[in-house]
Amino acid sequence: MRPTPPHDIPQGIMPPAHPFDADKLREECGIYGVIGLVDAANFVALGLHALQHRGQEAGGIVSYDAETGFNSAHRFGYVRDNFTKAGLMETLPGTLAIGHVRYSTAGTKGHTAIRDVQPFFGEFSMGGAAIAHNGNIVNAEALRRELIDRGSIFQSSSDSECIIHLMARSLQKTIPERMKDALRRVEGAFSVVAMTRTKLIGVRDPLGVRPLVLGRFGGGWVLSSETCALDIIGAEFVREIAPGEMVQISPEKGVESYFPFERTQPRFCIFEHVYFSRPDSILGGRSVYETRHQIGVELAREAPVEADLVCPVPDSGTPAAIGYSFESGIPYGMGIIRNQYMGRTFIEPTEQIRNMGVRLKLNVNRALIEGKRVVLVDDSVVRGTTSRKIKEMILDAGAREVHFRIASPPTAWPCFYGVDTPERDKLLASHMTEDEMRVYLGVDSLRFVSLDGLYRAVGEARGRNAQCPQYCDACFSGDYPVAPSDMIEKGFQTRAAE
Amino acid sequence: MRPTPPHDIPQGIMPPAHPFDADKLREECGIYGVIGLVDAANFVALGLHALQHRGQEAGGIVSYDAETGFNSAHRFGYVRDNFTKAGLMETLPGTLAIGHVRYSTAGTKGHTAIRDVQPFFGEFSMGGAAIAHNGNIVNAEALRRELIDRGSIFQSSSDSECIIHLMARSLQKTIPERMKDALRRVEGAFSVVAMTRTKLIGVRDPLGVRPLVLGRFGGGWVLSSETCALDIIGAEFVREIAPGEMVQISPEKGVESYFPFERTQPRFCIFEHVYFSRPDSILGGRSVYETRHQIGVELAREAPVEADLVCPVPDSGTPAAIGYSFESGIPYGMGIIRNQYMGRTFIEPTEQIRNMGVRLKLNVNRALIEGKRVVLVDDSVVRGTTSRKIKEMILDAGAREVHFRIASPPTAWPCFYGVDTPERDKLLASHMTEDEMRVYLGVDSLRFVSLDGLYRAVGEARGRNAQCPQYCDACFSGDYPVAPSDMIEKGFQTRAAE
Amino acid sequence: MRPTPPHDIPQGIMPPAHPFDADKLREECGIYGVIGLVDAANFVALGLHALQHRGQEAGGIVSYDAETGFNSAHRFGYVRDNFTKAGLMETLPGTLAIGHVRYSTAGTKGHTAIRDVQPFFGEFSMGGAAIAHNGNIVNAEALRRELIDRGSIFQSSSDSECIIHLMARSLQKTIPERMKDALRRVEGAFSVVAMTRTKLIGVRDPLGVRPLVLGRFGGGWVLSSETCALDIIGAEFVREIAPGEMVQISPEKGVESYFPFERTQPRFCIFEHVYFSRPDSILGGRSVYETRHQIGVELAREAPVEADLVCPVPDSGTPAAIGYSFESGIPYGMGIIRNQYMGRTFIEPTEQIRNMGVRLKLNVNRALIEGKRVVLVDDSVVRGTTSRKIKEMILDAGAREVHFRIASPPTAWPCFYGVDTPERDKLLASHMTEDEMRVYLGVDSLRFVSLDGLYRAVGEARGRNAQCPQYCDACFSGDYPVAPSDMIEKGFQTRAAE
Amino acid sequence: MRPTPPHDIPQGIMPPAHPFDADKLREECGIYGVIGLVDAANFVALGLHALQHRGQEAGGIVSYDAETGFNSAHRFGYVRDNFTKAGLMETLPGTLAIGHVRYSTAGTKGHTAIRDVQPFFGEFSMGGAAIAHNGNIVNAEALRRELIDRGSIFQSSSDSECIIHLMARSLQKTIPERMKDALRRVEGAFSVVAMTRTKLIGVRDPLGVRPLVLGRFGGGWVLSSETCALDIIGAEFVREIAPGEMVQISPEKGVESYFPFERTQPRFCIFEHVYFSRPDSILGGRSVYETRHQIGVELAREAPVEADLVCPVPDSGTPAAIGYSFESGIPYGMGIIRNQYMGRTFIEPTEQIRNMGVRLKLNVNRALIEGKRVVLVDDSVVRGTTSRKIKEMILDAGAREVHFRIASPPTAWPCFYGVDTPERDKLLASHMTEDEMRVYLGVDSLRFVSLDGLYRAVGEARGRNAQCPQYCDACFSGDYPVAPSDMIEKGFQTRAAE
Repeated sequence: MRPTPPHDIPQGIMPPAHPFDADKLREECGIYGVIGLVDAANFVALGLHALQHRGQEAGGIVSYDAETGFNSAHRFGYVRDNFTKAGLMETLPGTLAIGHVRYSTAGTKGHTAIRDVQPFFGEFSMGGAAIAHNGNIVNAEALRRELIDRGSIFQSSSDSECIIHLMARSLQKTIPERMKDALRRVEGAFSVVAMTRTKLIGVRDPLGVRPLVLGRFGGGWVLSSETCALDIIGAEFVREIAPGEMVQISPEKGVESYFPFERTQPRFCIFEHVYFSRPDSILGGRSVYETRHQIGVELAREAPVEADLVCPVPDSGTPAAIGYSFESGIPYGMGIIRNQYMGRTFIEPTEQIRNMGVRLKLNVNRALIEGKRVVLVDDSVVRGTTSRKIKEMILDAGAREVHFRIASPPTAWPCFYGVDTPERDKLLASHMTEDEMRVYLGVDSLRFVSLDGLYRAVGEARGRNAQCPQYCDACFSGDYPVAPSDMIEKGFQTRAAE
Repeated sequence: MRPTPPHDIPQGIMPPAHPFDADKLREECGIYGVIGLVDAANFVALGLHALQHRGQEAGGIVSYDAETGFNSAHRFGYVRDNFTKAGLMETLPGTLAIGHVRYSTAGTKGHTAIRDVQPFFGEFSMGGAAIAHNGNIVNAEALRRELIDRGSIFQSSSDSECIIHLMARSLQKTIPERMKDALRRVEGAFSVVAMTRTKLIGVRDPLGVRPLVLGRFGGGWVLSSETCALDIIGAEFVREIAPGEMVQISPEKGVESYFPFERTQPRFCIFEHVYFSRPDSILGGRSVYETRHQIGVELAREAPVEADLVCPVPDSGTPAAIGYSFESGIPYGMGIIRNQYMGRTFIEPTEQIRNMGVRLKLNVNRALIEGKRVVLVDDSVVRGTTSRKIKEMILDAGAREVHFRIASPPTAWPCFYGVDTPERDKLLASHMTEDEMRVYLGVDSLRFVSLDGLYRAVGEARGRNAQCPQYCDACFSGDYPVAPSDMIEKGFQTRAAE
Repeated sequence: MRPTPPHDIPQGIMPPAHPFDADKLREECGIYGVIGLVDAANFVALGLHALQHRGQEAGGIVSYDAETGFNSAHRFGYVRDNFTKAGLMETLPGTLAIGHVRYSTAGTKGHTAIRDVQPFFGEFSMGGAAIAHNGNIVNAEALRRELIDRGSIFQSSSDSECIIHLMARSLQKTIPERMKDALRRVEGAFSVVAMTRTKLIGVRDPLGVRPLVLGRFGGGWVLSSETCALDIIGAEFVREIAPGEMVQISPEKGVESYFPFERTQPRFCIFEHVYFSRPDSILGGRSVYETRHQIGVELAREAPVEADLVCPVPDSGTPAAIGYSFESGIPYGMGIIRNQYMGRTFIEPTEQIRNMGVRLKLNVNRALIEGKRVVLVDDSVVRGTTSRKIKEMILDAGAREVHFRIASPPTAWPCFYGVDTPERDKLLASHMTEDEMRVYLGVDSLRFVSLDGLYRAVGEARGRNAQCPQYCDACFSGDYPVAPSDMIEKGFQTRAAE
Repeated sequence: MRPTPPHDIPQGIMPPAHPFDADKLREECGIYGVIGLVDAANFVALGLHALQHRGQEAGGIVSYDAETGFNSAHRFGYVRDNFTKAGLMETLPGTLAIGHVRYSTAGTKGHTAIRDVQPFFGEFSMGGAAIAHNGNIVNAEALRRELIDRGSIFQSSSDSECIIHLMARSLQKTIPERMKDALRRVEGAFSVVAMTRTKLIGVRDPLGVRPLVLGRFGGGWVLSSETCALDIIGAEFVREIAPGEMVQISPEKGVESYFPFERTQPRFCIFEHVYFSRPDSILGGRSVYETRHQIGVELAREAPVEADLVCPVPDSGTPAAIGYSFESGIPYGMGIIRNQYMGRTFIEPTEQIRNMGVRLKLNVNRALIEGKRVVLVDDSVVRGTTSRKIKEMILDAGAREVHFRIASPPTAWPCFYGVDTPERDKLLASHMTEDEMRVYLGVDSLRFVSLDGLYRAVGEARGRNAQCPQYCDACFSGDYPVAPSDMIEKGFQTRAAE
């Protein structure tokens, strides 16, 4: 059982008495904040809409207005359905607002309560503060246990609530100082957007695992997980928040920068480039689209094949497929058509519909595929289930040969830093070689881009430097830059321990 | 601004930064708990339905089941509309459950959040506990300030949340002991129903201001605000919980009794007899109906009048009117008909409907009234607004004379112990004599039962003994048995201070 | 299977192919219309609220405004919950509006579709018209069959829809003339309120079975089922619409009166006096309250008994109980307390709650009942189920004797004219003598008022004149003033046929 | 004012008295039907999901089951949100079901009532029938007027309701014969899927303007607007229903074919190839994707340009862009990224959001565009508004040159056969030459594929044969194969009339 709060409205689920044995709630998220713009919450809504790919389950916005104080709204569902209605948006006045979109892991999704939806709010003796968090705290359970022992009452099952309780217990006199105190106790990957009554605050963890960028629009400032959410409101991209940096932004003083953590070698998440971020975003000075296109080029060089058609698995495989076609000269075509009226999944499916599986989302363009040798380009292979079904659809449609080309190395390790991946033994690459996977998937050939190739695509000319990698690539390498302490306590074995 | 929690779903309102200047949320409530019966939550729903007159705004139920842990549901609206649906009730399994219905004061009603709806839940290191509270904590703001200073994060604007935070910080090893610790810090009037994973707990404050009774049904035990809610499920009325008593009930050990507070002279709320409780309940060994009937008899003796018809203001004035008719020999008749499809108020009225006022709820039975000298019996006069309108309706219908007889003494002081009354200067009797009120209401005569007469009606043969009253009658006398400390800090003057 | 329309939103139920074998949907209803008042729909809403006792399941309002044309809203639930919201009422502009509240029989209730909720609307070549109907058309199935054969498409399962289709096929040039045409084809009991773009129309069937009254308010006119719904808006009661009369009301010409049907002896429903109408209404020049009080007096004369307490079964037995007490001198008291938070039934009950039965609604006031000889006064005995349960509650509470006194004669025949009664063999009085019923109910005595006594109470000094009765008393006598032709076709045997 | 039905639930809008001056409701639609499969409605839901691109506003399903008769559900919103819930789908049992998705024109969208949502149902003397219609009836208003004159009561504002009323008035003895009678009276474009209790029926108008295909799955049969909706359930594509053909399908007799209309030269809608159908569908034996790819090839031949990048306007311009890149050798790239969490529009936008316009949906991939000469490929230019905004975004992102290439000829005439197009004077091409449009759009070059080029792309080697065109190309040519009589009556001038 997972801990959920007492006032959980739709399901009426309450915390189990001992939530500590429960599986943690793993979250993917997007965060956004605005200061110095009239109707700030409207801009936050637009930003969250542009970040919707980072979390489709629910979203929340908190705003502050001198007259009415802090106001908030938290909703399940898409931003475009909830946070565009005049009736709601009028309840979120003010020139300062932050927001959050989230997605929790499949296994626990049904049990998510509206209380788990960020931003979280806390009232301190010096005033209130709201906070939204992207990433994952690897010592959250230990912190939670300690805080409950000392008298804190938790209201959600989200790890991120720890930060608010740590702040409440800090002896510092200001909210930003309390936030520094709190975040120094936290281990893991986090980008944070927060607000007091007068300041917008942004923080990235010392490794800089999750992205956070600064923008400027009119007389105001914007913080966002990705640059594509600056573009949507027409904001100018100023710079990335640096790993380990805290910025405090106010209309009067502008952006003040602090570095409250011990310095360390940054390790930005390489999977943001492969899959997680939107192709029109800029990460670490690199266009995501260009990187993915370049991965396709690298793949075509590393793993060429004689074929008639390069076909992406839509939509995430598309830029790499274009790159593969460009480099190889094999014509590019849309052999698989995606139903654009899907979310990530069909809601409340009946058994029959569940069995339809991938066909609800993808259909083969038979006329194009028939009789051809097809190169299928996908972003990654996780469990292999979907890949097998797609291969079958392609073969049923009359393809002569199917060659899988994967735009990332084999995913052999779970992510503990904020990307939803299954447990290790569910990962196909954790227990199969590339050739075993080829046989399992039943394709004519299967090739992954190499880790060096991936590093070249993101611009590290010499590939991965094992001594000093520039990225977190733990999902491919098992090299975890921060020990996942809660998981280790529960028995997880890192590669070092194997 | 009133403090509300961050995840307030329908309105999206958040706590102001400094909630301490805010008006407190005053609540009327009914509480209920069951242990040892299969599908305990269904019995709680029935009990709350019978207690609906104590709070119509919202209700909540928490149940515990070994397999699924604590479960809860909190809803705005009537029990009969929410807690009778199979889909919901199935989410509340187990043989142990507690529940709460509430009504908040008119002024703040629009801002009530679902988070303010009890029972509240807290997770402690030794397990979870849920708690529901009827009454009012008069030092709640001071406690809240102190707890926030020490790092507690409040989630609701309800005073009752203090109890959970005080429990979280107690150094005691068991939940019942922590509850004793917490309640010793609390000043005011409270009856509490609480639950751990194994026990149902009931507590009354040392004065015993609010009622709480114990019942038995099958192999199980029931706690309820009133006996009428034992009747609805067919439970046997065992006894009242004593002022200052805590009972811990488990299927194994039955009812264990403790007295954790310093002993003092009990002061049960006399207004429960006059208006608040249901006429079919037994309070302090007295039938509420009989008491009200007897108040009518006392009124007829203290304030006789020559008339043709005794007519109640429905429904609360009915038993006293029957008593007045019985004692005076003047025929009893339904001169005012109540629309039975009203709640306490017409929801979201347009301006036009608001002007219709009392006619939406009451209609004069013209054929009965016309040409008659009418004795109108009502339970109390608070602001006098409704009384004036009723008088006008009666005169418009052709009554020859109108004589008001009121089944309680003049309400001259606000209640701080859990009954919703307006501020002192809104109370007609705070600044008018009986004769001034008669002129203001424009009736031929106006008489209130005397405080002594009221005491006789509840069975105190010698009337009110000013040295040692048996009841809390502060709303009539200004004699507050517990100093309302938060209010005094804000400038409220008690009679002693005048 | 019952016929329901294709767009049934909540349940998605569609018409069966052959609805003719289906049980008809029997309805109880209240109707209301206003012309010549700004925001007429608001007044209609208030009127329907005052008529809510005539139908709690659903309601509808149609208004006409020169700019936006006809507008409508139809909703399940109480008027006070639906038709008081600014957002909705603003969609119903204009100075002309009609409305309807309805209740369908228990057996089919679950299947009622929003399409069955009146007023109905039809668009004719000379413009649109809306119509609301109270009563029951006894040849509706034959008409429906004929209309479908000729090409009409029915949209609801309501009999009343026939009227609109008959009007559509009339060769008359104006809507009022078409309505006359249509109503001349209809057999049974009906009061109708209708509207064109310029006129408010009211009609009563030639027997005048159902009530319809005319009121005046400001410069406008009002039609209503009962006078209590004139009182709520402060309208003056002008007169009853006469049996067989059609009034056409316009601001310019005022009230124009027509008598389009063959004249016959009126037969107003006597059960409106006994139970159906509100006690504060005036029917046929008689106060309903006074009539019921007088029935109690007649009962006390016809069936005296030695006892300690006269106690009504609330709320419908109350006036007769007061009358019985008045005549007999036995004290009156509230031995049974009604939970005022019930509608007619607990919504979606679980099995357990269903078994609680009458206790959800009524509780015995034990302190008053104990040890007493009790006269219980109720309005009628239909199936006897509730009466048995109430008797048991009274005995469990310690009553020494229980004497049932019923304020109507034995209900031995079903109503086919718009009051919901069960099939004949479900009626206790259809197959038991008074003494058999006494044994079945298990009471010390059981007496019904005589039919003559009832006639005396409504003012017919000589009692029922069998040659020429003034009322429809078919439910007591089996003397049906209009042959229920659809039912006879299905095998129902009238008394004449027995 | 537009005609809407009386029971319009959410808005409460009613028919104006004279709806004939109103603008007609123009609809785009998808239709689907299944016979001979258990839980047919589930298959229909899947089919409608695959046809969602043909109508996103609302959908409906009717099923027939011997035990419960006809059942239906009609809902606003996406199929995946409504018709996948167990609770709803269980109310639609049986082995025979039909369904419909629809989109009404922007101008009237706010007023659409649930009653306008198909399938429609009618009860005839020989049983019930449900019908769903794709296309547009050009003499619907004349028919409606005639039917109302003769006594039909319309319930919706949809043209398609005429068909049901025409059937109700037919003198034929069977439902299929009545349908033939009715459809012979109807002018315009229509594909129809209908059902009786025993048969699934499909019809295409004599010109075959809208598509309809037959599939086979297990022991059952399927009718669908497009083949992509056969693929989703794994059904085999059997053949197209021929222009002017009616098929009656039953499990016993299989597919029976009739040709009830006068034969004429077929004129399939060429815009289905350009934009309306899904790229993975097969129309007239041609893959839509291949046709669009080939249009791109034709465009590259007809309108070459020197450039660095071919970039589609997603998603409808994508296949033509791939074709243009393939033929021209200019690299293909995703210069514009589409937010996949949009429907067709942002719901209930605030003013601010509306001003954001196209940025909510599309973002420029600046890193790819910057400094390049870009060929932008789009499917069509209608009003030109969106094209101008896209051009601005591309230039803002630093493109050196922008060359528009349009995969259809200039849209100079409105469609009256079921595709939503604005009135003629809103169409850019109705009053501008290609060069004027280039200046208006502010691009370096603008070229449309020629009508001959388009005909070559769909496989007519010699291009459009003006004497005897194979397609309806009225939106490009003004050559309307059926005179739009209602519109002509209102003053619309066809090309012949100019």
